Amino acid sequence: MSQTVDSAVSAVRTYIEQHRAAFLDDLAEWLRIPSVSAQPDHAPDVRRSADWLAAKLKETGFPTAEVWPTPGAPAVYAEWPSGDPEAPTVLVYGHHDVQPAAVEDGWDSDPFEPVVRDNRLYARGAADDKGQVFFHTLGVRAHLAATGRDAPAVNLKLLIEGEEESSSPHFRALVEEHAERLAADAVIVSDTGMWSEDTPTVCTGMRGLAECEIRLSGPDQDIHSGSFGGAVPNPATAAARLVAALHDAHGRVAVPGFYDGIVELTDRERELFAELPFDEDRWLRTAKSHATHGEAGHTTLERIWARPTAEVNGIGGGYQGPGSKTIIPSTAFVKLSFRLVAGQDPGQVEKAVRAWAAERLPAGIRHEIAFSPATRPCLTPLDHPALRSVVRAMGRAFEGPVRFTREGGSGPAADLQEILGAPVLFLGISVPSDGWHAPNEKVELDLLVKGVETTAYLWGDLAENWRHAP
Amino acid sequence: MSQTVDSAVSAVRTYIEQHRAAFLDDLAEWLRIPSVSAQPDHAPDVRRSADWLAAKLKETGFPTAEVWPTPGAPAVYAEWPSGDPEAPTVLVYGHHDVQPAAVEDGWDSDPFEPVVRDNRLYARGAADDKGQVFFHTLGVRAHLAATGRDAPAVNLKLLIEGEEESSSPHFRALVEEHAERLAADAVIVSDTGMWSEDTPTVCTGMRGLAECEIRLSGPDQDIHSGSFGGAVPNPATAAARLVAALHDAHGRVAVPGFYDGIVELTDRERELFAELPFDEDRWLRTAKSHATHGEAGHTTLERIWARPTAEVNGIGGGYQGPGSKTIIPSTAFVKLSFRLVAGQDPGQVEKAVRAWAAERLPAGIRHEIAFSPATRPCLTPLDHPALRSVVRAMGRAFEGPVRFTREGGSGPAADLQEILGAPVLFLGISVPSDGWHAPNEKVELDLLVKGVETTAYLWGDLAENWRHAP
Repeated sequence: MSQTVDSAVSAVRTYIEQHRAAFLDDLAEWLRIPSVSAQPDHAPDVRRSADWLAAKLKETGFPTAEVWPTPGAPAVYAEWPSGDPEAPTVLVYGHHDVQPAAVEDGWDSDPFEPVVRDNRLYARGAADDKGQVFFHTLGVRAHLAATGRDAPAVNLKLLIEGEEESSSPHFRALVEEHAERLAADAVIVSDTGMWSEDTPTVCTGMRGLAECEIRLSGPDQDIHSGSFGGAVPNPATAAARLVAALHDAHGRVAVPGFYDGIVELTDRERELFAELPFDEDRWLRTAKSHATHGEAGHTTLERIWARPTAEVNGIGGGYQGPGSKTIIPSTAFVKLSFRLVAGQDPGQVEKAVRAWAAERLPAGIRHEIAFSPATRPCLTPLDHPALRSVVRAMGRAFEGPVRFTREGGSGPAADLQEILGAPVLFLGISVPSDGWHAPNEKVELDLLVKGVETTAYLWGDLAENWRHAP
Repeated sequence: MSQTVDSAVSAVRTYIEQHRAAFLDDLAEWLRIPSVSAQPDHAPDVRRSADWLAAKLKETGFPTAEVWPTPGAPAVYAEWPSGDPEAPTVLVYGHHDVQPAAVEDGWDSDPFEPVVRDNRLYARGAADDKGQVFFHTLGVRAHLAATGRDAPAVNLKLLIEGEEESSSPHFRALVEEHAERLAADAVIVSDTGMWSEDTPTVCTGMRGLAECEIRLSGPDQDIHSGSFGGAVPNPATAAARLVAALHDAHGRVAVPGFYDGIVELTDRERELFAELPFDEDRWLRTAKSHATHGEAGHTTLERIWARPTAEVNGIGGGYQGPGSKTIIPSTAFVKLSFRLVAGQDPGQVEKAVRAWAAERLPAGIRHEIAFSPATRPCLTPLDHPALRSVVRAMGRAFEGPVRFTREGGSGPAADLQEILGAPVLFLGISVPSDGWHAPNEKVELDLLVKGVETTAYLWGDLAENWRHAP
């Protein structure tokens, strides 16, 4: 067996080594297209990026590779059937649009002219997310070369959207429209990262997100705080009291019903988190913060990855200028966001928040609450066979143990999970130093190649260990 | 005695009737000068207003009438000694600057072209404060005419500032500079109002004012609420918790030491407030508010006139634009104002607020507090002989009982009280419908004449009932 493994590894590595230079040239060509979805004057570039990717996927061997238009920027869809009726179907998610970037922001070189320094490839999109999308192209070729197959061991589908950096406004509708073609047994998201260069990890969940703005009205106009102060309700005070009532003394969210149904961390998961080489001082520097603070009885990693939260993203009311103005403001607002974990339903959270706010506001303060479209949480069960395959494939590529993380943020992957009814897994090789959304974004070439290698092992492992039950 | 009183009243009224037309012509001439202290292009008008008033006071008979320059707009000072070494000295305070006004704001006629309609004089400054300053000119002449004196029964001083509508930035320094010449046994402020046309009242106090801005810092820059939410302190939450902690469940200010030393309302004062024909629904409409709210155990009038308060005048932090932004803000602020009542020391309040805020903020939140210059509260004791004189003089003019009010706001009169060490009394004839700071400001001509008449009786009553003890 060890013999077999070694020879398979060797075949994969040889193939990758032979094609690495061309792979990097191709990636560089793609990175030169400034597919900035947030800037309207780059709309032609985003379309060009989609066309380029579809063509490249055809060249890679995908029998089908299409550009799917949306009311905004187009997505790319590709599929490569296995031919095996019992093979599981995997849908890879990524995005081909990038964050804005300009040399003036502090880049050491042109963000859209890729350059390699110290075995790192610098360019906007190198890690987020073109690099991580692109390792799938060489990965599937290496998988075929090493196994002698002419189609992947799984039915492989790719959905690479073009608006992720603009909050994916049309993604949900796109997935709903094409749900039948996108049907899959598992979704693999390649738009995340690992713990560090030395600690390969698999992310097993992202938090969901419910956001709202609460607008409060008191007096019909600003009134004099000398003439009326102390005798009528002040909407800024009411807003502050709402925010103060969001948490109890133990840092738990105090909205009744908020925790209903949540999937609690198991002892095993807490142990797995605790095994990570977490340095709180270093983390605080990354957070640019001066203390930790949060729900009692939980570590920082548990708090950001696995516990639901309530945060104030904005608050305002009354006089905002320099000095003072003796008014009772007419209006005030708070913008709140709730990160959700598995088991929480955004609709139930919205209902709970509405009831909580309505009950707490005093007579004379009117209010309105507007919720934005929510994102559901997603969580991969630790014992899911597809997750085991990802861990094994990654372990072979990295030649060492693979640990588990989660992401505190939220992403459109949850829409895939919900609409397609498939579990979401994460396969990413980016590291915190890659500088997503920042100047001098880069990807570590050695890790990028490990991503290629991981997917080269993954499809075979999945097909072998997890049969599709039609 | 009744014979004497009647003949005195008759003499005063006859004199006023004879000079009423010329008095109103003069007032109209003054109101035509747009002495708007807040607008730099009206600075020459404010100076012209001061010159005009000084000349008019000389014409009235004041041996001394001077324009006192300040680094901003000038004040006018006048004095008319009694000649009686035991006569008390009274300093009248008012202001000759006015609020901005423009026809476009909704005036039915030019705000600086006075016009009489329905026995009301409409013009910016008619009530606030030129009309109420000006009744003193005819009042002292009527006093002399009716008593046959050639100097007032009291040593009469006037200090009419030019920056009251711009927060009196140089007033305190001016009073300190001229403290010796301004020395008085009592200060009479003619810059307030009465309960209503039918209910003549004397104001017996104004609240003081301490204002501060608390600036809170958390992360060194806005950070991602997905990556870090729930694990570091949020300065907007900290700001809200401070505000929420300002009051206890009974609506009392919860800053330890805040109430130390305050002069509580006596049962007699509460009875006097309760005697006023207060209509809460009507008051709420004036407050443009939809409910009353405040310290338990106190009526609305007690809350706005005689109880100290804490109000939020402004709050801000984080994202202020439309929609949502998933950040933990780097900074937040609250602007607070505390209305103070007799017995509270602004310095002590500042100290208490600083200690309270410092103690309540969590680790990782840094803060700065900036206090603006404070205004002290003032309160006339109900049994003060000068107050009794004011009440008697007003009672004769209005031919009926005089009740007591207070003002919830704060004013520079408190500086006079503090620097000169003299009690402050209020004599004003404006009514709530006069529209201070609003379009179509007016003064009721009948009440303006009652103001003239009141001062015509006041100086003799004061000299007779309250001797100066050198």
